[in-house]
Amino acid sequence: MGSLGRAAPPFISFLTDFGADNAPAVCRGVMWGIVPDARICDVTHAIAKFDVRGGAFRLACAVPYFPIGVHLAVVDPGVGTARRPIAILTGRGDILVGPDNGLLRPAAERLGGAREARQLENPALWRDHVSDTFHARDVFAPVAAHLAGGTRFDELGAAVPTASLVELVLPSASVRDGGLDSGVLLVDSFGNCRLAGEPVDLERATGALDPGRRFRVAMPSAVIEAPWVRTFADVTPGQPLLYDDADYAGLALAVNRGSAAERFELMVDDRVRIEPA
Amino acid sequence: MGSLGRAAPPFISFLTDFGADNAPAVCRGVMWGIVPDARICDVTHAIAKFDVRGGAFRLACAVPYFPIGVHLAVVDPGVGTARRPIAILTGRGDILVGPDNGLLRPAAERLGGAREARQLENPALWRDHVSDTFHARDVFAPVAAHLAGGTRFDELGAAVPTASLVELVLPSASVRDGGLDSGVLLVDSFGNCRLAGEPVDLERATGALDPGRRFRVAMPSAVIEAPWVRTFADVTPGQPLLYDDADYAGLALAVNRGSAAERFELMVDDRVRIEPA
Amino acid sequence: MGSLGRAAPPFISFLTDFGADNAPAVCRGVMWGIVPDARICDVTHAIAKFDVRGGAFRLACAVPYFPIGVHLAVVDPGVGTARRPIAILTGRGDILVGPDNGLLRPAAERLGGAREARQLENPALWRDHVSDTFHARDVFAPVAAHLAGGTRFDELGAAVPTASLVELVLPSASVRDGGLDSGVLLVDSFGNCRLAGEPVDLERATGALDPGRRFRVAMPSAVIEAPWVRTFADVTPGQPLLYDDADYAGLALAVNRGSAAERFELMVDDRVRIEPA
Repeated sequence: MGSLGRAAPPFISFLTDFGADNAPAVCRGVMWGIVPDARICDVTHAIAKFDVRGGAFRLACAVPYFPIGVHLAVVDPGVGTARRPIAILTGRGDILVGPDNGLLRPAAERLGGAREARQLENPALWRDHVSDTFHARDVFAPVAAHLAGGTRFDELGAAVPTASLVELVLPSASVRDGGLDSGVLLVDSFGNCRLAGEPVDLERATGALDPGRRFRVAMPSAVIEAPWVRTFADVTPGQPLLYDDADYAGLALAVNRGSAAERFELMVDDRVRIEPA
Repeated sequence: MGSLGRAAPPFISFLTDFGADNAPAVCRGVMWGIVPDARICDVTHAIAKFDVRGGAFRLACAVPYFPIGVHLAVVDPGVGTARRPIAILTGRGDILVGPDNGLLRPAAERLGGAREARQLENPALWRDHVSDTFHARDVFAPVAAHLAGGTRFDELGAAVPTASLVELVLPSASVRDGGLDSGVLLVDSFGNCRLAGEPVDLERATGALDPGRRFRVAMPSAVIEAPWVRTFADVTPGQPLLYDDADYAGLALAVNRGSAAERFELMVDDRVRIEPA
Repeated sequence: MGSLGRAAPPFISFLTDFGADNAPAVCRGVMWGIVPDARICDVTHAIAKFDVRGGAFRLACAVPYFPIGVHLAVVDPGVGTARRPIAILTGRGDILVGPDNGLLRPAAERLGGAREARQLENPALWRDHVSDTFHARDVFAPVAAHLAGGTRFDELGAAVPTASLVELVLPSASVRDGGLDSGVLLVDSFGNCRLAGEPVDLERATGALDPGRRFRVAMPSAVIEAPWVRTFADVTPGQPLLYDDADYAGLALAVNRGSAAERFELMVDDRVRIEPA
């Protein structure tokens, strides 16, 4: 049941692309079988199937708000192949568990950086029988639970140089000709579009972001004008806005009480240019 | 970790329109960081975006079945504007936390009425940095957690007259010419349509509700006959029925093993007239 | 609060076809009111409406991975009718609670068989008022919680011969003319299709299942070739594969990084024939 003298029960967050079926519950069951008092917090299981980048970005945005603990994340199109199962110990003291396909690194960055990484190769911490298609249940969940219960990080397996961990290429932003070239990083459930870059990048490209200042936003299917504002209701319902998104920590485009993604046919990876109007 | 001598860990229910993304998890993480042993019960995060009334009605129907505790609800199209963040102490002893836009009042009514209300204006109970677009995480969730952990209601901020709280206008029912004029309050996930009014209203309009008695139901896109029955299987599969809905506590129209909303193209706010057949 | 001396808090798993609305939360609230420290594990509430077989199969696949406990399952198109509310004590020591419509039996088989069954007829274990349309809340959830809290199995009501419990007819597999005739048992959220039968049945029909060996798969809307492989990534993205599915424990057809159900228009109950290519 974990180490003694603990103030709070162990915390495990859990993110997958498994959807609304019973796979996440099976993994929770496995974890509770190992560490019965764990607080298990489903981050989301609605990551688009096989969307490692979408999972990585959401995980990175969520973990800073969680108690220090174990973060289990599985978006794993390479399950059963040579891709390494790993765990990363972070600067803040959290441990990330999942496949080495780039899913975990952005979250590690938000938690003080990857201090140490280990390959999962200690079968004593796995289920007795390991399948070829469900490592979340048979390897990752039991390892996460054992870690939450007090197993030492160096019992997992051989150290892996953190520089060798797979890294994702995410859309980026760049300043050019008095505007910001950016890409769509993520579309949230409201249809708000998180763009690559921070407000400070837009400021660097175009000057001070005074509330109400208007911008021209060129997208693949639409060119619009939108003001820089503090919050949704600073524009009338149905109007677009540029703002600093609190959930996904950066520059974003939305429509007050509407869906920017739907209205402007925006998808992840689409390129966007923002210039003074 | 809350007040001492407590028999059960604190209970926090949690309802939003945030959908299947990671925002609810972030709020749960913030709450567990403050009150590590809380039982957090997601009511639903599938409220239609910005549908304050749908959220209010579902919350009101759910809270009577929860242990006495804190109920956090956020459907908040006015986030970051002057709408007040509030908490309501109820007759039963529960505390409701959310925006003052009508979302919380029907639930307060079901819990013995609003005994006292406070504006949330004590930043010591919030996150250090409060964003303009995610008050659920930065204000409401931490306040709910502190309350669950034992913070006194009067520490939240100034008292607000309960009569000044924003009130929603919900579809209503009225007796007219030997029938009941009603409106669709809610469509549930089965497509069952909860109508304004109680069985007693239909009885007042038309006389005793004997099982099997037939009614004419006029809707915008269809006019049908349906019997008053006790439960779904009292009619054959595919047949409509009028009944006393247990989940949403009142008069309802359904189709046995089907969706009344789909079949009769019924939506919230549609007007329905029920008369003896 | 359950029996004394317990090592871990009681475990209750919970499966329904209630969808994303607030009905599951209401049941969790009722259970926590009775057994405040229960670990409640939602299996899934996304079973297709009224799909008793889909619920039964998923429940059966999930329960072996859960701690010994109470498993509450409600897919109940006959709510309020004469169908019996029951509980089944299994060989492993778990108790299954739900309607006697076949939903629980396959899970009992996976847990060591149905050792004993009882009809739920002790109103002291129900809510004070029992509705006609929401027995999950008023009967099944409170009984499950009382059992998790230590109520003895024989307090539930009269014993029911286990042989009298309703049994479902699931698609089956049969060996014929050097091939396997099978049916689609389940389509998961990835679009992977679990077929009736085990790899050993295919082996019996066609000989040794060497990795890479190719088969002809005849479906209602498509005839394809697919290799027998160990895991998804053994074929290139977009290619079909036959494999031993770990989640649903048996023979399955998938498309690497795609949906077999969508691509081949496969649905539950469709017949499939597999022969050597």
